[in-house]
Parts: sequence; structure tokens; C-alpha cells
Amino acid sequence: MAPKDLIVRRSPFNEQVGYRLVEWKVDYARVELDVREDHTNRRAVSHGGVLMTVIDAAGGYSGTFCPHPGRTRMCVTVSLTTEFVRPARAGERISAVARRRGGGRGLFPSSIEVHDEHGHLIALGHGIYRYVKGSGAPEGIPGQDSTEDRSP
Amino acid sequence: MAPKDLIVRRSPFNEQVGYRLVEWKVDYARVELDVREDHTNRRAVSHGGVLMTVIDAAGGYSGTFCPHPGRTRMCVTVSLTTEFVRPARAGERISAVARRRGGGRGLFPSSIEVHDEHGHLIALGHGIYRYVKGSGAPEGIPGQDSTEDRSP
Amino acid sequence: MAPKDLIVRRSPFNEQVGYRLVEWKVDYARVELDVREDHTNRRAVSHGGVLMTVIDAAGGYSGTFCPHPGRTRMCVTVSLTTEFVRPARAGERISAVARRRGGGRGLFPSSIEVHDEHGHLIALGHGIYRYVKGSGAPEGIPGQDSTEDRSP
Amino acid sequence: MAPKDLIVRRSPFNEQVGYRLVEWKVDYARVELDVREDHTNRRAVSHGGVLMTVIDAAGGYSGTFCPHPGRTRMCVTVSLTTEFVRPARAGERISAVARRRGGGRGLFPSSIEVHDEHGHLIALGHGIYRYVKGSGAPEGIPGQDSTEDRSP
Repeated sequence: MAPKDLIVRRSPFNEQVGYRLVEWKVDYARVELDVREDHTNRRAVSHGGVLMTVIDAAGGYSGTFCPHPGRTRMCVTVSLTTEFVRPARAGERISAVARRRGGGRGLFPSSIEVHDEHGHLIALGHGIYRYVKGSGAPEGIPGQDSTEDRSP
Repeated sequence: MAPKDLIVRRSPFNEQVGYRLVEWKVDYARVELDVREDHTNRRAVSHGGVLMTVIDAAGGYSGTFCPHPGRTRMCVTVSLTTEFVRPARAGERISAVARRRGGGRGLFPSSIEVHDEHGHLIALGHGIYRYVKGSGAPEGIPGQDSTEDRSP
Repeated sequence: MAPKDLIVRRSPFNEQVGYRLVEWKVDYARVELDVREDHTNRRAVSHGGVLMTVIDAAGGYSGTFCPHPGRTRMCVTVSLTTEFVRPARAGERISAVARRRGGGRGLFPSSIEVHDEHGHLIALGHGIYRYVKGSGAPEGIPGQDSTEDRSP
Repeated sequence: MAPKDLIVRRSPFNEQVGYRLVEWKVDYARVELDVREDHTNRRAVSHGGVLMTVIDAAGGYSGTFCPHPGRTRMCVTVSLTTEFVRPARAGERISAVARRRGGGRGLFPSSIEVHDEHGHLIALGHGIYRYVKGSGAPEGIPGQDSTEDRSP
């Protein structure tokens, strides 16, 4: 069985890296990645770019949950800081939990933590995101953002 | 003719993303990327993760040039901050110039700027890198790091 | 009664700004500040520099608790990122809780959150700190770091 | 003779720390500080909070120059990252040069570099600033921001 993934419109780079949105609610998102050989650097651990990709995605999703069927919300990343705490290796499943931390209808900050399956902290991320026009409000804009059927 | 690339040992994620080290000297590195469709996000511009991957690579190279044939230097990323200034699109060639900014034999900071071919600023990066044991000294450790023949 | 403060050797800038270390244990520190008029900027809210001063102090303390009487531990800040979430005003008491997040005997990351008395999030901070020689080990170096009597 | 300072409305914390705006033009600001004993930490070098205060101020000024007499522009700091490269000591004069790096009428990024009088790099800063309503346009809002007479 394929792992759960709530993403409907998977971006090309998302396809390539293979991360999945596995939990999504107001001000919260969790993104998973099964670390593969082709995610590694010359030291045979996950490339920093892979971790930052997952962190960036999780942070963006944390502020764009839209509870209304047929509607969606979008944002762009203004800035992102990552601290690398511990390397992840191919074969491990890592999980990035992102929490929106305040903000308004224009900007929002998100704090992201990446752990492996044993609960070890892999990396910390902190992003500032900007809502795309119309997406600052919870009702967002017309579109489809997740595979979950939210109809009554 | 294939574009120039000084990287000898290409990491798996480097293979996948396709960036190239095109200039390398003491305290300086320049990394190029031809932005492809599979680097884009749902808004059809370069995924933040792609830009951060290139920035991270350039910053690391900026502190690990080794002028001695048959020797190399390695580092790991401690932290990286990126500000996203302007999106890059598929078909564009972007260039990340990284400059080591001081530091010692343990840690070094690097400032990285990404521009497109028209000179537009795409992103700014700022990393803290830590030398792997033996790599803090200019003579580094045994290994091969670039395709350039530095023999007399 | 003067507010509690565990700091023994108050630095000159600490004197000037007036923050207090009010809780301190392994991998944890809490620093308080009573925001005064002379901490404000031209918009009559706490100057970003004041918040970053408190954040920086809390983060450093979070990795330098020394449980041994007559001994101390010191660190220097390598880098610090702050996201400003909500302004603080003169007359408010703010509290910065810092948690060391992994790391080793050389470097450690710390996550810091600043709240006001009503539980509103004011700012988020993320630092990388480097131990000064001898301070990476829990037993630290000779010195006195807190007013608390830890003798049996 | 008092050192030059273009700041008209000095904030209370600016008064306390004593930094001065010494050069100001479109997308550029330079702020100076004479490091005093009361700016130092327990290691007798400039407290990180002092450097971040100067960096934050310089970055904000870099995007708010207003060439029109009787008008001004304001911004707030969204996030700020600092890398500490080399300590500054009491008695030294340090100079923070800030350059706005793109952005629009809502947000702008600024890169800040702090050097001492000998040209040594002290710290690097990178901020995201948000314009206060009406300040995104070059003509700004009614107010007075500098001592310079810009009348013809």
C-alpha cells in the first residue's frame, strides 16, 4: 500500500524528492520523507538541501490549511533558517512537524522540527512565509489542495 | 560540449539536482544550475529547496578549496539562512557565488548570493560551516576534490 | 523585594538592559525583563535589539548550567536568528525560555521563545553557540556562575 | 565637536546605546557606534545584543531613506539573522553598512556588514523588514526623519 499523502497537486520537485504531506490541520502540518540513497551527499548522509526542502514544504503547509472543500491557500517563502543537529541516513524515515506561530493575513512565521523514527532531533527550521493574494483568509481561493474529502 | 564542472566526487543528490562547481579558489566558490522543469514548485518557479541546495553547496565549497594535488578538505553545515528575493524559472541558468567570511580552523561563515543571467538577485544565503577533522588546515587530508590538474 | 536573579557576574550591558536569569537547569534557562521606556524604539514598542539581547543571553545560559559548586561554563554566540511576532510595550514583563537542542562539547543549538505575561508569543530565537575551552564538559572550569548555593 | 548624526527622532533605546546614523541614501545606510565599557559582556567584548541592535537599526534605515523634505518612511523588523565573526572591544569605533537588496512596497531584505576601524569584519546581518502603511512608496508619509536640510 502506498504511504498516505494528502498532496493533490504534487510539484515537479516534490515528485523528485518524494516527500509526503501526512497530517494537516489549522496551523499545523507534518511532512514525511523516506531518505533514499539519491538524497545523500559525499559523506553518505542526507544532503542539507533535502532537509531544507522538506522543512520549507512543511512550514508552508502549516499556514495554508483550508477547511473549505474546493478551495485552497497558497504562500511563498520569504526566508528560512535551518540548524542541522544530526545527520539522517538512507533507509530512515524522517518527519517534519511544522507549526504556524502567529502572524496575520499577510505574513506568518512557522517553526519546524525534523525527527527520525527513534525520536532523535535531526534539524530545526524557522521560516517566514507570505500569503499569495486571497490566501490570507481561511476561506482562501478556488482550488483543490488535498486528497481528503471534506464534504459533509 | 558538457558544461564545465570541477566536482570530482559528485554526491547522489548533486547528481539528481545537477548543479556544477564552475569556479573555485581560496575562500571563493561559484556554483551553477540550469533550472529545469523538475526543479519547480506548484507555482512553476524554482522550489525553495533547489535554491537552498545550491546555496548550501556553494557555501561549503567556499571554505574547502585545497591547493595541494591529491588532497582535499571537507566540512558540514551547522546552519543556513536564506532570503528569497525573486523567483527563478525553468530554462534559466542561475549562479551562486559564495565567499568565506573569516572564521578559523574550526568554523567558518560564508555569504552566498544567487543571480540569474541578467544579473537579477534571486536569493541571499548565509551559512555557518564546521570543518571535518583535519580539514581546517589548508593542506587538508588525502583525497581528490577537483578535476583540475594542479600538478606543476 | 528585588526580583530573583541567579546571575552572579552581571556584565555591563546586562546591567544596562536589566534582564534577570530566573530559572536555570541542565539544557534550560529562563530570562526575564521588565520592559522600560528606555527599551523602546521610535514606534514606542520594545526595540528589536532589546529582544535580541534577552534572547541571546537566554540561549547562551541554556547550554552552560554547571551543577558543580565553584565551577562555571562559558560560551560565545556563533549565530542568532530572531523572528519578531508581536511587539512588547513598556510596563510589560517578558520571559525568554531557552532550550538547548542537542549538540556536543564543541557547539550547541538553542531554541528560545519570548512570551509576555498574558502568554502572547513576542519573538522566536534560534542560536548556535560555541563552548569556550574547557566549558564543553558538564564540570566546566573554576569559577562562580550563580547565586544559588549548591553546596550540600 | 559632536560626531555627525542624521537621526532626528532618537528612540529611547538608541539614546541608551548611542549609535549614530552617519550616511543615508537610497537603499543604503551606515550606522556607527563607539563601543563603550557598558556595551560589553562578561568576556569584556561587545555583547551580542549591542551588535544586533546596531545591525537592526542599520538594516531598517537602508530601506527607509526619504528624499522629500518633511516626509518620512517607517518599517518594522520581521526577522534578523546575525553571524558573529570577531569580537569588538571597548574603545573601538564600529561601522555597520546596510544595503537594501531588492524587495517591493511591502517587504525588503537588507544585508548588513559590521567592520571595525582597521577593516576587520566583526559581524554579518541579514534582515527582512516590512514597511509600515504608506512607507512603501519613496514619498513616504508626513514627518521629519533626518537633520539634513533637503530644501533647494
